[in-house]
Amino acid sequence: MKAYALLGGPVNLWPMNIKEVFKKAQNKGDVIVGVDRGSLLLEEMGIIPDLALGDFDSLKKGELSKIEKNVKDIRYSNPIKDYTDSELMIRTIFNEYHVDSLVILGATGGRIDHFLVNFFMILNPEIRKFAEKITILDRQNKIQFCDSGNFEIKRDHYFYYFGVAALETVKDLNIIGAKYSLNNFSSDYPRIFSSNEFKPDQDSFILKIGQGLVAVIFSKDINRFDNL
Amino acid sequence: MKAYALLGGPVNLWPMNIKEVFKKAQNKGDVIVGVDRGSLLLEEMGIIPDLALGDFDSLKKGELSKIEKNVKDIRYSNPIKDYTDSELMIRTIFNEYHVDSLVILGATGGRIDHFLVNFFMILNPEIRKFAEKITILDRQNKIQFCDSGNFEIKRDHYFYYFGVAALETVKDLNIIGAKYSLNNFSSDYPRIFSSNEFKPDQDSFILKIGQGLVAVIFSKDINRFDNL
Repeated sequence: MKAYALLGGPVNLWPMNIKEVFKKAQNKGDVIVGVDRGSLLLEEMGIIPDLALGDFDSLKKGELSKIEKNVKDIRYSNPIKDYTDSELMIRTIFNEYHVDSLVILGATGGRIDHFLVNFFMILNPEIRKFAEKITILDRQNKIQFCDSGNFEIKRDHYFYYFGVAALETVKDLNIIGAKYSLNNFSSDYPRIFSSNEFKPDQDSFILKIGQGLVAVIFSKDINRFDNL
Repeated sequence: MKAYALLGGPVNLWPMNIKEVFKKAQNKGDVIVGVDRGSLLLEEMGIIPDLALGDFDSLKKGELSKIEKNVKDIRYSNPIKDYTDSELMIRTIFNEYHVDSLVILGATGGRIDHFLVNFFMILNPEIRKFAEKITILDRQNKIQFCDSGNFEIKRDHYFYYFGVAALETVKDLNIIGAKYSLNNFSSDYPRIFSSNEFKPDQDSFILKIGQGLVAVIFSKDINRFDNL
């Protein structure tokens, strides 16, 4: 069983087919989660989330009561809290709903502090154990996480480039069989290698990580006026 | 003397008054820099950059020759290189143009590997020495950097929230005199504290950093349809 979560990030960065993604997921019995304003945005798409979670402090009273009327499982978080809403969502979805994987949408763009919280929460030990099951997705990026070990990273034809980001101290990082190789790289602080590509005749490359949490960021260029 | 640099990030994330910012800067004798496609975007606004820098591999031949005709100082970078175009720009602007500060626009949004490269390059020792002179600016975020020490962070009335992001191992991080305090925080990996606010009766707060590079991210909410 999979889960799909929608956060409150800007609508114009959603994948174009987001409604279809959620509809298909719901028909297959996957878990749909709305985080804070994301719950309302799902309802506006005609999708009732299975789980809604947040402090909902940015919602109007009428908006919240609509969610309370329709959603079966609602979790209210404390605005001053040890866990962010996203962290609470990930703990709930893996520990209680026992899903195999999670795709997070609406986590990018807008306020950069919000994005960084959602990106770097993966380093929190309680979230990190689920790292390899989590994908962050938007209109032109797909982010996966790999924690120490050897990984075969498969091509996704929708995206052209990939970048490799060490999110913390990393030891013996290797990119093998891609356009640009990396050999035995180590760093005491985050480092990003952007704009790499798959080899034309290869549909995967090997990521070898001696130690450290690494994000693989698939991306594509879009016309600079697409977003206007 | 200040410098203003435009990178190739999405146009819809530029500050609304960007043309005015560049025009004013140019009239004052500040240095205007175009990085890669940013050079062309400046010309399209009617602003000839003082310095253009990049591998220009995304430009058409006619676009590049327009830049070559108009811009006095052009630096061609190698697509396979030790420094990114942004890093090369920062080294050039501080070491050769001797500016006092630099505002970077067009560095956010779009491809997330690009943004992360521009955000985390500050940790590169050759860039880090200029950290406190660098600002990253977009339509709803302003990012400043503080490296170990005590800082009085002043309110910017355009932005409502601020977040504090430790970009690496941080020791004894304190936020004093803001809505939410932080005391003697230490971490071995990046951590972000988002959605803090200035106290209503205060126009500054104190950031005390025992050790580590920290970003202060000012941000504001915008209507979720503003960007559509």
